[in-house]
Amino acid sequence: MSARERAASVAAPRRERRSSDEKWRTALTCIEPNKILVRGYPLDEVMGRLTFGEAIYLLFMGEVPSPGIGRLMEAILVSFIDHGATPPSTLAARNTATTGAATRACVAAGLLGFGKFHGGDIESCMQFLDVGLEMVRKGASYREAAERLVEQTAGNEEPRRPGFGHRFHTRDPRAARLFQMALELEVEAGHIQMIRAVEIVLNDNPKEHLPVNIDGAIAAVCGDIGIPPSVANALFIISRAPGIAAHAEEERTRQTPMRQIDPKDHVYDGPSERRLPERRK
Amino acid sequence: MSARERAASVAAPRRERRSSDEKWRTALTCIEPNKILVRGYPLDEVMGRLTFGEAIYLLFMGEVPSPGIGRLMEAILVSFIDHGATPPSTLAARNTATTGAATRACVAAGLLGFGKFHGGDIESCMQFLDVGLEMVRKGASYREAAERLVEQTAGNEEPRRPGFGHRFHTRDPRAARLFQMALELEVEAGHIQMIRAVEIVLNDNPKEHLPVNIDGAIAAVCGDIGIPPSVANALFIISRAPGIAAHAEEERTRQTPMRQIDPKDHVYDGPSERRLPERRK
Amino acid sequence: MSARERAASVAAPRRERRSSDEKWRTALTCIEPNKILVRGYPLDEVMGRLTFGEAIYLLFMGEVPSPGIGRLMEAILVSFIDHGATPPSTLAARNTATTGAATRACVAAGLLGFGKFHGGDIESCMQFLDVGLEMVRKGASYREAAERLVEQTAGNEEPRRPGFGHRFHTRDPRAARLFQMALELEVEAGHIQMIRAVEIVLNDNPKEHLPVNIDGAIAAVCGDIGIPPSVANALFIISRAPGIAAHAEEERTRQTPMRQIDPKDHVYDGPSERRLPERRK
Amino acid sequence: MSARERAASVAAPRRERRSSDEKWRTALTCIEPNKILVRGYPLDEVMGRLTFGEAIYLLFMGEVPSPGIGRLMEAILVSFIDHGATPPSTLAARNTATTGAATRACVAAGLLGFGKFHGGDIESCMQFLDVGLEMVRKGASYREAAERLVEQTAGNEEPRRPGFGHRFHTRDPRAARLFQMALELEVEAGHIQMIRAVEIVLNDNPKEHLPVNIDGAIAAVCGDIGIPPSVANALFIISRAPGIAAHAEEERTRQTPMRQIDPKDHVYDGPSERRLPERRK
Repeated sequence: MSARERAASVAAPRRERRSSDEKWRTALTCIEPNKILVRGYPLDEVMGRLTFGEAIYLLFMGEVPSPGIGRLMEAILVSFIDHGATPPSTLAARNTATTGAATRACVAAGLLGFGKFHGGDIESCMQFLDVGLEMVRKGASYREAAERLVEQTAGNEEPRRPGFGHRFHTRDPRAARLFQMALELEVEAGHIQMIRAVEIVLNDNPKEHLPVNIDGAIAAVCGDIGIPPSVANALFIISRAPGIAAHAEEERTRQTPMRQIDPKDHVYDGPSERRLPERRK
Repeated sequence: MSARERAASVAAPRRERRSSDEKWRTALTCIEPNKILVRGYPLDEVMGRLTFGEAIYLLFMGEVPSPGIGRLMEAILVSFIDHGATPPSTLAARNTATTGAATRACVAAGLLGFGKFHGGDIESCMQFLDVGLEMVRKGASYREAAERLVEQTAGNEEPRRPGFGHRFHTRDPRAARLFQMALELEVEAGHIQMIRAVEIVLNDNPKEHLPVNIDGAIAAVCGDIGIPPSVANALFIISRAPGIAAHAEEERTRQTPMRQIDPKDHVYDGPSERRLPERRK
Repeated sequence: MSARERAASVAAPRRERRSSDEKWRTALTCIEPNKILVRGYPLDEVMGRLTFGEAIYLLFMGEVPSPGIGRLMEAILVSFIDHGATPPSTLAARNTATTGAATRACVAAGLLGFGKFHGGDIESCMQFLDVGLEMVRKGASYREAAERLVEQTAGNEEPRRPGFGHRFHTRDPRAARLFQMALELEVEAGHIQMIRAVEIVLNDNPKEHLPVNIDGAIAAVCGDIGIPPSVANALFIISRAPGIAAHAEEERTRQTPMRQIDPKDHVYDGPSERRLPERRK
Repeated sequence: MSARERAASVAAPRRERRSSDEKWRTALTCIEPNKILVRGYPLDEVMGRLTFGEAIYLLFMGEVPSPGIGRLMEAILVSFIDHGATPPSTLAARNTATTGAATRACVAAGLLGFGKFHGGDIESCMQFLDVGLEMVRKGASYREAAERLVEQTAGNEEPRRPGFGHRFHTRDPRAARLFQMALELEVEAGHIQMIRAVEIVLNDNPKEHLPVNIDGAIAAVCGDIGIPPSVANALFIISRAPGIAAHAEEERTRQTPMRQIDPKDHVYDGPSERRLPERRK
């Protein structure tokens, strides 16, 4: 049983088949008067001892993450926190905010914009990598599996190879950083090897050259730390909620209501590039 | 200028008055090819060095939080992460999930359930405390201000005094923990003093006895660390997104589609109460 | 009891105060095997005999409308069906559609854009007119009441006088048509008189000149046919759902995915102005 | 070219391939000062001359419907207007309403509940019928095509045969009425013949016996009047918006806030069964 299968068996117990007089069940959080247990842990003890990212892992996966996986969870959630004013999800939220709508409505409108072409890559990249890993399990080398994957998907519609290529970035700094952390924290395994093999094969063909993007990096890392695709997809939604809410808040406080928002017609006027304070880890 | 005013002036620059040929502005995130700056910091450097909670603070408030405020941010976000299967927001999400809808749609439906009676208390409690603090600024003692607040709101509609009382809990363990952390981290100031004074006044009247709830605790702590009410409201929405997504995921994996969900007819079958592993801080 | 009070008493029976063992109640639709009764009428009999607009009235108000009120319902619903590509609600839906999201998600995102500054005028205009009608009931003439209303609201924030003024139209053709129909169908009463009196007073002051807009016309007509403000607000939401869905559909079929939508940069390429076929009533 | 292909070619012009300096295009509604043209018709002329249902057809399909198709549109929209308090979409909206949320938020939450298992049948039933009609076009009889369809789908997951079977109704009165109207209005064609042939084949097998449901009836009628699947899906969403809004309104006016909604624990207390007034057509 792989790390992912093991983790998945914790996170997704068997579907209930209960007789009509039985109660339905939930294993997430137990509520009693003056007591809240998240996956068995008193929530007031979790406060101050687990970070938000670790608590998110606990909630979905059922157990406290190891320190290394906890740090990767934080990095994954941070990597997607915002991508400026132009993603369609952010624009949906800003168009909602300009009408005077409440923040919750703006965030809801924004999250609905994570469709087939926007954020859907994480789940499909995990499935794409799984096809390759199945070949490896049957005896192929990573290189051979990657070559076959690239060949098989050559005629696909866009996004042809989920997890590769980006509208803005030719080398996504977030993907590089995530791979580096996975290496340092020693969680690198088959999924990361597989996605790198595919990247090398694509690199060999100048017409196909497409670097791994952040969706691909998250898909590979989630695969290697045992997070199933549907949870990886949920993490993506959770990680962008702050960015969408912050744009809604900024729209409300800096702009006039009911304005026409041209995504191309804006300029960044925040602080220029700066370094994090030294005292930070 | 109070901590909050100072923070607010950073977070909310003046509303733009621009001529029609000027570009509109955003100060959140700068996107250039192969570069993403959140409030000036390269996102790939933020990954691994700030936690998700600290990055959320940075995004909304414009600066990296002090370590103490960072820890409080994590605790605030963790405190709201889930409250079991019965909040109406969670039930809206589960009813959406039972139709086979995508996680993003379930989360959106759930967040829309944060209305006047559900989660609206944080913002209104901050305003309630500000009325009292204004009295203190004009010379009243905290006790006198609290007495006047209780008197003035005696005839109000429900929720009469936002931040007090809970459907399930007579003593909210999350509120106690948050106040304890604020004390230890030495961020306790006027808002916490004010809410405690009100609690004492309410305690003196057996008919009115209502303890501070988690909304009240968050409102007071946010007030004391300089987070404006609209951002506190956004934090609340962000903090519950994981819980709603986890319930949607559990609905999809453990239950049959298109079922009728009776909120009272369920039982918790997760791990029984347990302690966090010792190695945790 | 006015038409509106009468109608409201049908539509909104008293709030339930039931003991814990009692069932909760709904008066909208009765479902039995092979039988669906909407407000008592078999739905299969309603099909083909009431129009969609009449059935909407039946559902909300509890009775089949008179033919005149039925025709006004249709006109009200038609008047709001679409307003081109630039309302923020429509842009939120198009930005959602460009991500490949399902139509239901696009419509949800669009409807969430009906906030304080966008569509909120119908309810507030009804309340505004009611203040004037209360003066008339106490003996003022319509002219006097209108003058006092204009005076009282002179210092208000925008929208100063809900139901007046429009970003694009100096004379809203939909408002004129709705008033003409109300006159012909003999349903004109106090609310329409009141809004006209206010328009005349505003007309006398060149600086204040603002014509009645479609929100104001609908508010006045709904007031005169006994539709309460909250139902008028619901009608508005229902009436624009087709427009939002049609824009989502057009975005998906005519445009490339993940495009940047500039609201000002578009052109209409549909049929040029034409007349309805003669055979139509 | 079939009616549907013809209609589809009107409704969905070719996807734009425009150079970067060209404007993007919309063919729905032209907005000029004091002029609103929906598909070329002045909206103020449409008001009072087309019903809401006919205007919805015009908006999506580009032309005024024939009187017969107009009547079918109304019947389709009416048929789905509400189905009581227990559909998950309605429960999502009621759970949102109990928090004090605005009507638009309740409607959005409700619409998001139209997922794979709830309302998705119309589009998939149209595709299912199209497979059969393709066999007929290649020489099979309707009976033969139906037998092959039933055989091919025997092993499918639920919903095995979209458009057949219902949780409550063994004979859906809405489906019967819609087929009767299609017959009387002389629009019955291949799709209705196909679905009836499938129903007969299923009828012959007592284990498989499943009647056509309203989704199937709408799918077949839409197929025969030339409405493409994606528009039929949009009509479904539009048609239930009033029901969802009415339940939200009833929740707000008759129930206490923040209640726990058990879908099975309610009773209908509206008018008992009654006949429509005679004067109606």
